[in-house]
Amino acid sequence: MNILIIGGGGFLGQKLVRELATQGKLRDREIVGLTLADIVAPAPCDAPFAVKTASCDITDRAAVDSLLAARFDVIFLLAAVVSSHAEAEFDVGMQVNLHGVLNVLEAARSQQNAPVLLFTSSLAVFGGDVPDPIRDWTVPNPQTSYGTQKAIGELLVNDYARRGFVNGRSLRLPTISVRPGRPNRAASSFMSSIIREPLNGEEAICPVAPDFTHYYLSPRLCIRNLVRGAEIDAEELGENRTMTMPGRTLTIRQMIAAMTSVVGPEPAKLIRFEDDPAIRDIVAGWRFDYDPAKALALGLEADESFEDNVRYYLADDIERQRESQLP
Amino acid sequence: MNILIIGGGGFLGQKLVRELATQGKLRDREIVGLTLADIVAPAPCDAPFAVKTASCDITDRAAVDSLLAARFDVIFLLAAVVSSHAEAEFDVGMQVNLHGVLNVLEAARSQQNAPVLLFTSSLAVFGGDVPDPIRDWTVPNPQTSYGTQKAIGELLVNDYARRGFVNGRSLRLPTISVRPGRPNRAASSFMSSIIREPLNGEEAICPVAPDFTHYYLSPRLCIRNLVRGAEIDAEELGENRTMTMPGRTLTIRQMIAAMTSVVGPEPAKLIRFEDDPAIRDIVAGWRFDYDPAKALALGLEADESFEDNVRYYLADDIERQRESQLP
Repeated sequence: MNILIIGGGGFLGQKLVRELATQGKLRDREIVGLTLADIVAPAPCDAPFAVKTASCDITDRAAVDSLLAARFDVIFLLAAVVSSHAEAEFDVGMQVNLHGVLNVLEAARSQQNAPVLLFTSSLAVFGGDVPDPIRDWTVPNPQTSYGTQKAIGELLVNDYARRGFVNGRSLRLPTISVRPGRPNRAASSFMSSIIREPLNGEEAICPVAPDFTHYYLSPRLCIRNLVRGAEIDAEELGENRTMTMPGRTLTIRQMIAAMTSVVGPEPAKLIRFEDDPAIRDIVAGWRFDYDPAKALALGLEADESFEDNVRYYLADDIERQRESQLP
Repeated sequence: MNILIIGGGGFLGQKLVRELATQGKLRDREIVGLTLADIVAPAPCDAPFAVKTASCDITDRAAVDSLLAARFDVIFLLAAVVSSHAEAEFDVGMQVNLHGVLNVLEAARSQQNAPVLLFTSSLAVFGGDVPDPIRDWTVPNPQTSYGTQKAIGELLVNDYARRGFVNGRSLRLPTISVRPGRPNRAASSFMSSIIREPLNGEEAICPVAPDFTHYYLSPRLCIRNLVRGAEIDAEELGENRTMTMPGRTLTIRQMIAAMTSVVGPEPAKLIRFEDDPAIRDIVAGWRFDYDPAKALALGLEADESFEDNVRYYLADDIERQRESQLP
């Protein structure tokens, strides 16, 4: 079992390789090698198998072909230009999120061993005038270029799989919280900050009202679902290899209450509510009512409660985050 | 009003230019020029405005840029590699139906006048395990490469429109019957042959049982809907510029009865039922239960009855077809 993670430098890629190193196996076979690729070669990772790192710009077909000159049994395709970037720079988004995905699919096809290919999509494929809840047969009607490019990736993965070029599957990720690290420019950044910063004794600003509702998953369950997603057999996937990863629908008030129930009342006092119309307008258009029936039937999981999301951050990330901030 | 029809050599393109020549106007403005482009330059057409013809391979970006060096107000993008061809030759389908569509969208974007761009999609985007009826918010779950490529085209048209690059809209065509001309290798070919050949005094073979059910539209109403589709204002299109063109759900038995009611019982005697498992297996997977609510609300129409489809063939096509078969 030889594994490739494209986009292995991001926080999910890094968590995924640590999980695979712990398991030592995937799809009931021993992992003998793993390659972590990203636009900048990622840091390596201790593992009971050989870990290589590589830099690869997926918009460069020759570089992708070279990366896939080695034969892989499972490919995780996590690399993407994120939503705000793809919206600000249309051509960059198209190059990475559409042509880059095509380059990886073509290179995987040319391996001629139909590798398992897990493509991470996003709930950003949904939007516009469709009824709630969003089900497995609801039309992706993206209202961003990122969502459009992800929806196209899903269609391509399905067709490359139907034709036997890859053993593909696409998982649409909920908003991940509590995401480790620092705030970023994503409109969703506050959905982790308001928990993460107070747990670190820092102030956080919440730009929406306490009743703002959204759909969340912890990093730990996301990684568990990515591993499970790679293990599902083709026959179980049926005629649509795309599914929405389970999450939980929560208000800001519920998230804060969960934090308080885990660590007491002090951190919540560090949260200030300051209305930010620019962020509010973006996130108010996002959907939060999902029925991820297919993924649940295939064994993917949501967190039991947001208390778990808080506990997982404390257990998995807070020490690592503090270490990385040492001078 | 300067118009471009890409794929102007096909039977729909030829009918469309004749309709536009008759109307002389589109979107309440006088047509002053029309360019018919196809992989082989189409025959010109008498019209009260200047008609140019051009050969253009849409997989060649430079050729598309050159074609769109003139500024067009409305572009009809009908050109495609059809379903059986895209299934047999994957790379050709991808080049024409994906990269070719991207080339046209990019060239239209570079015009910087956000031309109306009408993209013809297909009911082939639907398939797989989704509930009946198929509504405007049902996921395209194509089970062919052609359907995949058309679904991608729809997503691209939506995003290019949302960003203001084009004033786009996509119409999914039902199976057209009675299609003029000769049988072709499409699995749906018999759905016109069983009416057209008997009306011309020729035998026809029906490869499915009389209760086979499908979703049809006449060429005349299809053209009327394409014209209406180009005239719909952007505000009316809302957050999804894709819609299913209305059609009628009919059995083979109903189609034949309609022919008999228009022209008497003799032609129906020329139809032989000969089961063809290869064709039956393909068409049995096609969907026929559609609820095209959005298109109906925007003024697109289905035929009143299949009697109309028969009458339209007799009025619009039978003489032209016989002339074209003269030595």
